[in-house]
Amino acid sequence: MERRAEFSRWKAQCLSKADLSRKGSVDEDVAELVQLLNGREQFFTTSSCAGRILLLDANINGFEVQKQNCCWLLVTHKPCVKDDVIAALKKANGDATLKFEPLILHVQCRELQDAQILHSVAIDSGFRNSGITVGKRGKTMLAVRSTHGLEVPLSHKGKLMVTEEYIDFLLEIANQKMEENKKRIERFYNCLQHALERESITDLYPKEKIIKKSNSYSHKKRRNREKADGKCVTEDNDKELENDDDPEVNVTIFPEDY
Amino acid sequence: MERRAEFSRWKAQCLSKADLSRKGSVDEDVAELVQLLNGREQFFTTSSCAGRILLLDANINGFEVQKQNCCWLLVTHKPCVKDDVIAALKKANGDATLKFEPLILHVQCRELQDAQILHSVAIDSGFRNSGITVGKRGKTMLAVRSTHGLEVPLSHKGKLMVTEEYIDFLLEIANQKMEENKKRIERFYNCLQHALERESITDLYPKEKIIKKSNSYSHKKRRNREKADGKCVTEDNDKELENDDDPEVNVTIFPEDY
Repeated sequence: MERRAEFSRWKAQCLSKADLSRKGSVDEDVAELVQLLNGREQFFTTSSCAGRILLLDANINGFEVQKQNCCWLLVTHKPCVKDDVIAALKKANGDATLKFEPLILHVQCRELQDAQILHSVAIDSGFRNSGITVGKRGKTMLAVRSTHGLEVPLSHKGKLMVTEEYIDFLLEIANQKMEENKKRIERFYNCLQHALERESITDLYPKEKIIKKSNSYSHKKRRNREKADGKCVTEDNDKELENDDDPEVNVTIFPEDY
Repeated sequence: MERRAEFSRWKAQCLSKADLSRKGSVDEDVAELVQLLNGREQFFTTSSCAGRILLLDANINGFEVQKQNCCWLLVTHKPCVKDDVIAALKKANGDATLKFEPLILHVQCRELQDAQILHSVAIDSGFRNSGITVGKRGKTMLAVRSTHGLEVPLSHKGKLMVTEEYIDFLLEIANQKMEENKKRIERFYNCLQHALERESITDLYPKEKIIKKSNSYSHKKRRNREKADGKCVTEDNDKELENDDDPEVNVTIFPEDY
C-alpha cells in the first residue's frame, strides 16, 4: 500500500510539472498513447517524442552530434520536403547533419511486473531497443526505443557535400522511416490496449490469474494469437525474437579461462 | 541457493556453445571486457560486438536496413579507408548503406541488483541506451547500447549517389566515432573493475554493506569521486545524467483527464 501511495505521489508531482521541451506539448502522433498510459494507475510518462526529422548544425567534435551543442536548423514530426532542407542548410555554418529519430518514450512503472508487461508490448511492436532501468528508491522506468534511424552528415564547415538530388533521395528514405515509425506507434497502442484488457480480466478473476501469469511473458503464444488477429506482430519482429541471442554477434570464451 | 545453482547451469550451458556469429570469435576490442565479466560468478555475456563500420546492400523496403535481408559488402572493426569502400560499392546492386554501429553487449545477470550495478557502470561510461530486460523465469539481461551511430544511404538501385570526396569525409567521421567508441569501452572496463572491487569489499565486510548499498546507486557521489580520478565520467555524460528526464522531450498531460 505504501508503494502504491508513493507511486501515486510521484505521478501527481510529475504530471503537474510544466512541459520543459522546446515544443512545450506532447507530439500529436504519440498523444493517444500517452493518454492511454497516464490513464492507468500503474504508469505515467515522463518524456516522449513521436519521432522527428531534424537538421542540426554543429562544431562536430567528431563523435557525437549532441543536441545541446547544436543549432537546430529544422525539426519536423511530419514528412519533410527538399526545399525546406535546402533553405535550412543555407543557414549552416559548421557541420550540418540530418537525423531521423524514431519514437522515444519514457514510462515510469509502479512495479517491475508492470514494466515487464509494457516492455513485452514495446518489443512486439517493433521497438527493439527498449529496456528497463531500476533506479535508487526502486524507481522503475521503461525506455521505449527503436533502431531504425538515420544520421547523415551533409555539410562540412558550411560547405554542402552532397547534391540536391541526394537530399531528395535521402528525404524519401527519411519520410518512409517516419511512416513506418507511425505504424509502429499504432501497433504499440493496439497491443498495449489488449495487454491492459487482459490484466484487467485477471484482476477481476484472481483464480485465473495464476494460469494467465505463466502465459503472459510467453512471447511465442502471444505472437501466434496476435498474428491471427493481424495486429501486433510483423515478420521481422518474429525473426528477431526467435532467439534471445543475436546470432550475428555471439561470443565464445577463451578455453584457458575454464 | 537454488537461484545460484540455476544461474551457474545457464552460464555453463551458454559458454559451452559454439560461437554462431559470422566472425566466429570475440572482437579484439571487447575481449578483455568479456573476460572480466565471464570471470565473475554473477555475470555471463551472451553476445557482443565491439563496434563496426559496415556497408550493406539491400533491396530497401523503406524502413529498416535489416542485416539479415542484406548483402554485407564490407565490415570492419578497425578504421576504414575510402578505397575499400569504393571497391565494395562496385559490387552493390541495390541500395547500399554505410553504417557505424557502436558497442553492443548482452550480459545475463544473476540478480536484478547485479544488473543494476552493471547498468550504472554502462551509463556512466557513455552507453546511454543501455537497459535491463527481465524475462520469463526471472532471466535478467542487461543490454549495453549507445546512441552515437551513423546510417548513410550511398547508392540507389546500384547507382552511386555521392562523390568520392563525400565518402572520404564520411569515413573520417565514422573512424572518429570508432575511436570514441573504443575509449568508452576502456572507460567501461575501468569503471566495472572499480565497481566490482567495491562489491568484493562489501562482501568481505558485511557490516559496511548496508551503508555502501545505500550509496551505490548515488550517481552524483560516484561521479564526483571518479571525476577526481579522471576515470569514468565525461562532461557530456554529466550533463545527460543530471536529470532523469530529457528536457527536450518532456510531456504535458491534458488537463481534462484529471
